Amino acid sequence: MNEKPFKIAIAGLGTVGAGVIKIFEENYPILKNAAGREIEIIAVSARDRNLSRGVDLSSYNWEQNPIKLAELTDVDLIVETIGGEGDPAKSLIEKAFLMKKHVVTANKALIAHHGHDLALLAEEVGVSLRFEASVAGGIPIIKALSESLAANKISRVLGVINGTCNYILTEMENREESFSTVFSEAEKLGYVEKNPALDVGGIDSAHKLAILSSIAFGSRINFNGIAIEGIENVSLADIKNAKSMGYRIKLLGLGRMTDKGLSQEIRPCLVPKNSSFGQLEGGINMVMVDGNFVEQATFVGPGAGSGPTASAVVADIIDIAKGNKTYPFGRSTESLAIHKRAEEDVKSAYYLRFSIADKPGVLAQIANVLGYHNISINRMRQTGHDGEVAPLLIVTHDTERSGLELALSEIKMLDICLAAPIAIRIEEV
Amino acid sequence: MNEKPFKIAIAGLGTVGAGVIKIFEENYPILKNAAGREIEIIAVSARDRNLSRGVDLSSYNWEQNPIKLAELTDVDLIVETIGGEGDPAKSLIEKAFLMKKHVVTANKALIAHHGHDLALLAEEVGVSLRFEASVAGGIPIIKALSESLAANKISRVLGVINGTCNYILTEMENREESFSTVFSEAEKLGYVEKNPALDVGGIDSAHKLAILSSIAFGSRINFNGIAIEGIENVSLADIKNAKSMGYRIKLLGLGRMTDKGLSQEIRPCLVPKNSSFGQLEGGINMVMVDGNFVEQATFVGPGAGSGPTASAVVADIIDIAKGNKTYPFGRSTESLAIHKRAEEDVKSAYYLRFSIADKPGVLAQIANVLGYHNISINRMRQTGHDGEVAPLLIVTHDTERSGLELALSEIKMLDICLAAPIAIRIEEV
Repeated sequence: MNEKPFKIAIAGLGTVGAGVIKIFEENYPILKNAAGREIEIIAVSARDRNLSRGVDLSSYNWEQNPIKLAELTDVDLIVETIGGEGDPAKSLIEKAFLMKKHVVTANKALIAHHGHDLALLAEEVGVSLRFEASVAGGIPIIKALSESLAANKISRVLGVINGTCNYILTEMENREESFSTVFSEAEKLGYVEKNPALDVGGIDSAHKLAILSSIAFGSRINFNGIAIEGIENVSLADIKNAKSMGYRIKLLGLGRMTDKGLSQEIRPCLVPKNSSFGQLEGGINMVMVDGNFVEQATFVGPGAGSGPTASAVVADIIDIAKGNKTYPFGRSTESLAIHKRAEEDVKSAYYLRFSIADKPGVLAQIANVLGYHNISINRMRQTGHDGEVAPLLIVTHDTERSGLELALSEIKMLDICLAAPIAIRIEEV
Repeated sequence: MNEKPFKIAIAGLGTVGAGVIKIFEENYPILKNAAGREIEIIAVSARDRNLSRGVDLSSYNWEQNPIKLAELTDVDLIVETIGGEGDPAKSLIEKAFLMKKHVVTANKALIAHHGHDLALLAEEVGVSLRFEASVAGGIPIIKALSESLAANKISRVLGVINGTCNYILTEMENREESFSTVFSEAEKLGYVEKNPALDVGGIDSAHKLAILSSIAFGSRINFNGIAIEGIENVSLADIKNAKSMGYRIKLLGLGRMTDKGLSQEIRPCLVPKNSSFGQLEGGINMVMVDGNFVEQATFVGPGAGSGPTASAVVADIIDIAKGNKTYPFGRSTESLAIHKRAEEDVKSAYYLRFSIADKPGVLAQIANVLGYHNISINRMRQTGHDGEVAPLLIVTHDTERSGLELALSEIKMLDICLAAPIAIRIEEV
């Protein structure tokens, strides 16, 4: 297709950046054939030149300052795998655009926070900004939403998009251990980000959901519009109760376009044990998309790791080397809509757990409050209990979250309520 | 992006062609935004102008002869949804290329048989030939293989890619009915192609596998290199036996690149009941891809139907309207390799069913033949039997198909063997 080699520079040589080089070392003929032209890595940058990374850097120019990569006149594209929502990643990308170079990044935090401005800049300059690797590692969900499903009105994206949380929840269930025990082990194994709130606090999932829902719904990326609940408060008791009722607890990212606006949530939810979401174990991610013509398409794959993530980065590089264009968020950045937030309006069933005093009349008190708020009970169970605390489990029929929250805050104030009630939504995926 | 409207003509207004028009009617702003320009349907062609199709054709020019669409000077792209591996579909596409028009088709039979020559012609002329809709309806597996996973050396593609067969097998198990009963019903419901061999004979799956393995392995499309076994001989007895051992029978399409060449097979296989393949019901398709960097990516969605298939057609149209280029088979058609066929070399476990005479010593005779051919037995079970026929079930350890076939042909000739032995491969997906 093109006689001229396409030249790239890589900033950041951690797992992803080094993975990209490894792909060039092992699969070069394959990617060259796909691109229809030579693609050359001509320069790299990282903090520590002497770190062993399992790849041969000797044929690439070294720049200590990543920003300098953007100044190299013969570079066509910058790969940003430094990470972090601020500098130097952000400055590097801005500089690259000013120098009319394309950018491929794996940086979800940066895109979630600054993606809109960066996309505007890229479009103004006429270069590409691509970030397939930023969401769900090896799953090509960004291309699926922005290209393959581009003819659809998307009503929902639903995903398990953080492997660490899924690993922790899976281990808690399999080994019947508490969150804190499994979390400490995962930390020791290096599975958890330096700032654990990113993983278990749901922030990382929210970064990814912000990107997915922007593309799915044609809306301006809005990280701050996401209701975020992590898995820190998921107890072994709830996992066991869920299991006994045929469910598993998964941290779901859920974007829905409703009549009342855009709803974006990261929340632990109960999903049927036998559903494809329920069967997802360890670090595997899954994203399900509902569209008005495709009906439902589901994508499964490794959510992180050097190989899968670098595979996504290189796919973006090949696309750009071919001269292919896609708007960063699937349509022109200026045309992205600002949708009203509508998180409380979706009705769902809920799993409720109350720790109540073991006295006559307590059930009636709780049932009264729920009934007053129009919350009807589907199933109820009082499990065996030690001492004076009686765990009471209730599964509601579909109900609005807002009404439920009112009811729970009233129940919490009752004398008989010995701990804050637990409410976990049920998604019959 | 582009001020000039992109103009298309549609040949064939069956479920898929009419579905494309429906998408333009219902989702036009969405697809226009994705393409960054206006896309206009300017002409259509079908056999019967007066058939009611649930869409409004009044604003399009009508051509009785589809070939004429390719002669319209202002048309940029022809959508071929006539179907069939021969004319008029083939002539139309050739004519379109000669007139320098792009082509999007949903025609798997045509691509499986003539895709190579058509792709050469398209490349020579410098236009696009795209056929996302030809495989697995709403699942964007062609784009996934040719673009998203383009950095990978693919070792295996594995799929359930014919919804009709999956529906029949599912119904046989759920309702404990024979193949012929369920098949007749499916025929009445309109689920089966006019020539049933296309579906239940595995031909349709083979058309799709030929396309997938060409893209996955960079090999010249080779429909004739596929070992094809349909589901006509899958008995209710085998389905029940499989179930009792924790398996389900699925018609799998399987392409593998081995040290000895390319193996392509369509075969009913036993898959674990709890695996994602085992849980696939009705018309849903699934394709799993193993690559050396992405590890494993899996794609699930509706395998047919007006909406999903038209969604794939329109995605291709949008891509081409944007000016994006992809080689029809993922790399330049000339560079596609001709791989040696290597189907017999992959070792697998097998489920075997023998109908043997209920006499002393018969087990020993069968075990002797298997042992002689180095086939070792993992599990064996003799089920309850009426009269003189004793069903004997054996699950082997991993064995080569060639040796197994020799052994079975010897066993078949034994006096004690009352019917041809049944052998179904087990895929521990």
